[in-house]
Amino acid sequence: MTKKIQLAQKVLSENDKIAEQIRATLQQKGIKSLNLVSSPGSGKTSLLEKTIAAIGDQIRFALIAGDVQTENDANRLLKAGGKAVKPIVTGGACHLDAKMIGKALDDIDLDQVDLLIIENVGNLVCPSSFDLGEDMKVVIISTTEGDDKPLKYPGMFRRSSVMVINKIDLLGLSDFELAKVKENALRINGDLKIFEISCRTGDGLQDWYDWLGTLAALPVKLSE
Amino acid sequence: MTKKIQLAQKVLSENDKIAEQIRATLQQKGIKSLNLVSSPGSGKTSLLEKTIAAIGDQIRFALIAGDVQTENDANRLLKAGGKAVKPIVTGGACHLDAKMIGKALDDIDLDQVDLLIIENVGNLVCPSSFDLGEDMKVVIISTTEGDDKPLKYPGMFRRSSVMVINKIDLLGLSDFELAKVKENALRINGDLKIFEISCRTGDGLQDWYDWLGTLAALPVKLSE
Repeated sequence: MTKKIQLAQKVLSENDKIAEQIRATLQQKGIKSLNLVSSPGSGKTSLLEKTIAAIGDQIRFALIAGDVQTENDANRLLKAGGKAVKPIVTGGACHLDAKMIGKALDDIDLDQVDLLIIENVGNLVCPSSFDLGEDMKVVIISTTEGDDKPLKYPGMFRRSSVMVINKIDLLGLSDFELAKVKENALRINGDLKIFEISCRTGDGLQDWYDWLGTLAALPVKLSE
Repeated sequence: MTKKIQLAQKVLSENDKIAEQIRATLQQKGIKSLNLVSSPGSGKTSLLEKTIAAIGDQIRFALIAGDVQTENDANRLLKAGGKAVKPIVTGGACHLDAKMIGKALDDIDLDQVDLLIIENVGNLVCPSSFDLGEDMKVVIISTTEGDDKPLKYPGMFRRSSVMVINKIDLLGLSDFELAKVKENALRINGDLKIFEISCRTGDGLQDWYDWLGTLAALPVKLSE
């Protein structure tokens, strides 16, 4: 085994230890948690903006918004009415890790939180390898990205519990086929729960809100 | 300095040595080279398909198509008429490195090539750190990704010489503003050459083809 592989394993193992501590803390506080992952520009922030505006008075959200650079996303979430919003600027790193999340959670009053949503760095590869202590990963894919993405980035779809297909208002303007992306995704991970939405028109968002409501009130299955 | 940072520097320095060898070989053979980088689904493969079909008889292209999984892109390029096409499946790695390119080039008859185009893994973060021995990086951004991307992923736009804005046929269907993305990109890198295209409608592609033609016949500035 090369030194490089040994080191990578050590980094992941240290991350996993912190992630387990975070998971234990969140479970003890009765907080459900999601890790939102996607390509850049798939609509993670837009979905959270809509969600806060629609049900931010019914579910107490804590939101952690990660970016390589700028706090733009966190600012958008605050503007949308988010209360417990923490930005993480990775300064170049291609993913969030559990240590960053632990630090961000130190600044959040967890007794006032029902549901934690972490918006990861826009990247369909690296964030899939880092457990942040979340209950489950939610992968967002937009209809402008091509229906072959689950096959080309299988790790992310394998490790996610939910797939949100965003920008369905743009269907028909490319060769993206809804049936095809679902078929490809389910071939990688037959357990994926799927939502079809448009943040722009609002289509499908009610189902997403209902699911979050159920999630906040009931125990959920842990992601792998 | 931690062991982790030392190791990262060592990996990059080894990569840079191989990249310099590749650059020297390509220059000796009079081959120009581009490293295409973008988010997943921005249209790297579509642009290459169009390019091969349009001017593949005038410029002798070598094409290296990198993906985390599947050889789909390479197969699309072959189907479009590409002759010297080599797939690289990284099997999980989030970027191409110089060693992979060196190995792929061993299988290509460089005496029959004018222009080498490398299609990197879809990822706006990690590929920016790896020199592949190319003359310049070309970053593709599509209008469905949001006009803030240059500010959020500055490394990629700083290290690219060219920005191609794809899917301009979808302008007006989101809040993406062409003027804004150009302003943001030029704030990061004032030297960026910019193309505005639509692979779907063909708009703007002639300028891109003309530029490739000039590139294949004339000396170009090296990327940083």
